[in-house]
Amino acid sequence: MPTKPLILAVNAGSSSVKVSVYTLSSSEPHQIAEAQLDGLTAPPAKLSYTRGSTTVSKGKEQQQDVKDQGAAFSILLDELVNDSKLTELARKEDITHVCHRVVHGGDYSKQQPITKETLQTLEELSSLAPLHNAPALSIVRSCLDELPGTRNIACFDTQFHRGLPEHVRTYPINQEVARKNGLRKYGFHGLSYSFITRAVAGFLGKKPEETSLIALHLGSGASACAVKGGKSWDTSMGLTPLAGLPGATRSGSVDPSLVFHYASDVGKLSPASTKELHVSRAEDILNKQSGWKALTGTTDFGAISAGYDKDPAKKLAFDLFVDRICGFIGAYYVSLHGEVDALVFAGGIGEKGAELRRRVVEQCACLGFAIGEEANGKGGGDDVVRDVSGKGQHKVLICKTDEQLEMAREVMEIESLSG
Amino acid sequence: MPTKPLILAVNAGSSSVKVSVYTLSSSEPHQIAEAQLDGLTAPPAKLSYTRGSTTVSKGKEQQQDVKDQGAAFSILLDELVNDSKLTELARKEDITHVCHRVVHGGDYSKQQPITKETLQTLEELSSLAPLHNAPALSIVRSCLDELPGTRNIACFDTQFHRGLPEHVRTYPINQEVARKNGLRKYGFHGLSYSFITRAVAGFLGKKPEETSLIALHLGSGASACAVKGGKSWDTSMGLTPLAGLPGATRSGSVDPSLVFHYASDVGKLSPASTKELHVSRAEDILNKQSGWKALTGTTDFGAISAGYDKDPAKKLAFDLFVDRICGFIGAYYVSLHGEVDALVFAGGIGEKGAELRRRVVEQCACLGFAIGEEANGKGGGDDVVRDVSGKGQHKVLICKTDEQLEMAREVMEIESLSG
Repeated sequence: MPTKPLILAVNAGSSSVKVSVYTLSSSEPHQIAEAQLDGLTAPPAKLSYTRGSTTVSKGKEQQQDVKDQGAAFSILLDELVNDSKLTELARKEDITHVCHRVVHGGDYSKQQPITKETLQTLEELSSLAPLHNAPALSIVRSCLDELPGTRNIACFDTQFHRGLPEHVRTYPINQEVARKNGLRKYGFHGLSYSFITRAVAGFLGKKPEETSLIALHLGSGASACAVKGGKSWDTSMGLTPLAGLPGATRSGSVDPSLVFHYASDVGKLSPASTKELHVSRAEDILNKQSGWKALTGTTDFGAISAGYDKDPAKKLAFDLFVDRICGFIGAYYVSLHGEVDALVFAGGIGEKGAELRRRVVEQCACLGFAIGEEANGKGGGDDVVRDVSGKGQHKVLICKTDEQLEMAREVMEIESLSG
Repeated sequence: MPTKPLILAVNAGSSSVKVSVYTLSSSEPHQIAEAQLDGLTAPPAKLSYTRGSTTVSKGKEQQQDVKDQGAAFSILLDELVNDSKLTELARKEDITHVCHRVVHGGDYSKQQPITKETLQTLEELSSLAPLHNAPALSIVRSCLDELPGTRNIACFDTQFHRGLPEHVRTYPINQEVARKNGLRKYGFHGLSYSFITRAVAGFLGKKPEETSLIALHLGSGASACAVKGGKSWDTSMGLTPLAGLPGATRSGSVDPSLVFHYASDVGKLSPASTKELHVSRAEDILNKQSGWKALTGTTDFGAISAGYDKDPAKKLAFDLFVDRICGFIGAYYVSLHGEVDALVFAGGIGEKGAELRRRVVEQCACLGFAIGEEANGKGGGDDVVRDVSGKGQHKVLICKTDEQLEMAREVMEIESLSG
């Protein structure tokens, strides 16, 4: 009897690892469990685990030190295997596929099966984004060792942006160096934008290839994307996730000269470097020591929004974020010639930040966007897409994006699986 | 008898120096001569000189080597003094004021008289923009020596942007470092935007403080400015002139990580550094070895426009420039809430680039801009401001900007001069 597919979708961040477990129904992955380990860089690490709709643990502090994302993955895997009520995953051997969110996919235009041999290619392309790819690669290595019978698939955040027009993706620099070193706009958050495009098209009753959007993925990493006929036409992140909007600890776009006036040793290697992967001190400063944390002392945008009237630093961070977001909305509105089905908010801040949404949409009133105060103020419920438009020419929507589910779909597609 | 005011306005670029001579009529400076030396970095240098409406020399090749902008200024000064028909300037002592365009004015909020003592302050603030301020300072030193009886005034390109709102001018980085090192958006091309705002307000029959514009200064350095009620509300250049739009040899905004993947020694000093002023190799690459020169081999945007259909590299450079310009138009349209009296094209490319104007305005049709094909295609004549609008909601104008005249006005103002 052939084994039934069981997919683990792994999403490794700089300080957390999330694993979602899927079986397959006829045409869609079906999530049966989700386990997450947070606070890797601020011990003790905390484990949360839900099976179906049952919360098994929430924020359970871990005794042992978790040295990296690979170790975090092992702990999560044990938690899943040891849960006797998760009958679909009784032994590690029940896992048929593990898909890994790899931030930077370089020139890969689609998801890739990983073997010990192809891992080297992934490691090489990571030289463009060492800060961003290293966590996932640590888990890939651990899977190749611990789960020898499992298929590993790399899913890339760059993939959705593979068709960026040449005049959008090109940097006006020496083109020989650009080609040799792979210096162009790649764009990120692609798993999210792919999910958003499909979900919103469905909500609007349109085909994805007829759907054009300005989508905002706003979380501790934040970006904007112009979706034209279902495809990425422009996006705010660039060669790396640093460009574009600011984030929790990321500066976003700044004068490219700036960092050379920030400190004198910015070209040197940062302590975050490894033997294989080099990170300049500049990249460390702009990715890890900037953003609204640097402005306000907190990475929690909810706290910044709540403190707007009391704390000038929080007001500044909020106003700055609104301004930069609206800049991309204006730019993308023009590049889409005003043919925009909807402005879509997604990501943690996009979903929860009612006040941010209100401010952004009001600022963009001249483009024909309007917010429905009541719908915008309400909690979300279970809807994947929710309409919060007021009386405007274009819709304003909130989308609960799901990168894990999108990865599980990509596995179904590339492995030709069905339920 | 008090000396009659005679003002020299000096505009030093990286490869040229221009000197305009003004007497004063009742309320306005009146230009009586203009001399320019081009090709300092590509000898032989070439001198052009007009007296009133008479062309005295045009592109006259110079025998001697011109080692820097200070030396170029001396040659131009001799040319002016030795022209017996320029009776107002018979001797160096006839010059009462020399005003110098200084690109980066740091925290100076208005034009400054320069003495040997204050020159040091100017040199210090130049650490933020060594590539851009050095030419002017070389001339200032030469004037303080050669014209001891003359008043020297520094006019800054940053000055018009002094009131940028805090959330626009702030970079989301460590604010202690930002304050200590002066890291914020300053903005440039301010003399031009100041001229444009006054001229366009006059053309529209409005007061400057009632005039809101999206202004584009497009030359070998290019920038955009949102003018709100006569003042700069946002602009595309940043801490230095590198940020924002690409230029002839400048990359404009790129992922701040990019240069660290361009070469391994970008943090080191460039050969362009002096003992006093440090330029990183990164800044040299992005300011001097990028832009449309890097894409096409030419700095001549006219040739790029003309070669659009024949040469894919020129098409790419042109499309890329249109895309980036339209991005700023969209962003500024939103930040001005759509209250825009006119979109204004200025600078060499803005004035001459009919095809570029057409493409940009057509791309922005969704914002209510339209081009008048006939007016856009015609030559300019002597009008300072020219209407090239089609049937759109907002006007589209061309402005012959004049940074020298703006400087001479600033001298009149700060020295309380009248004709």
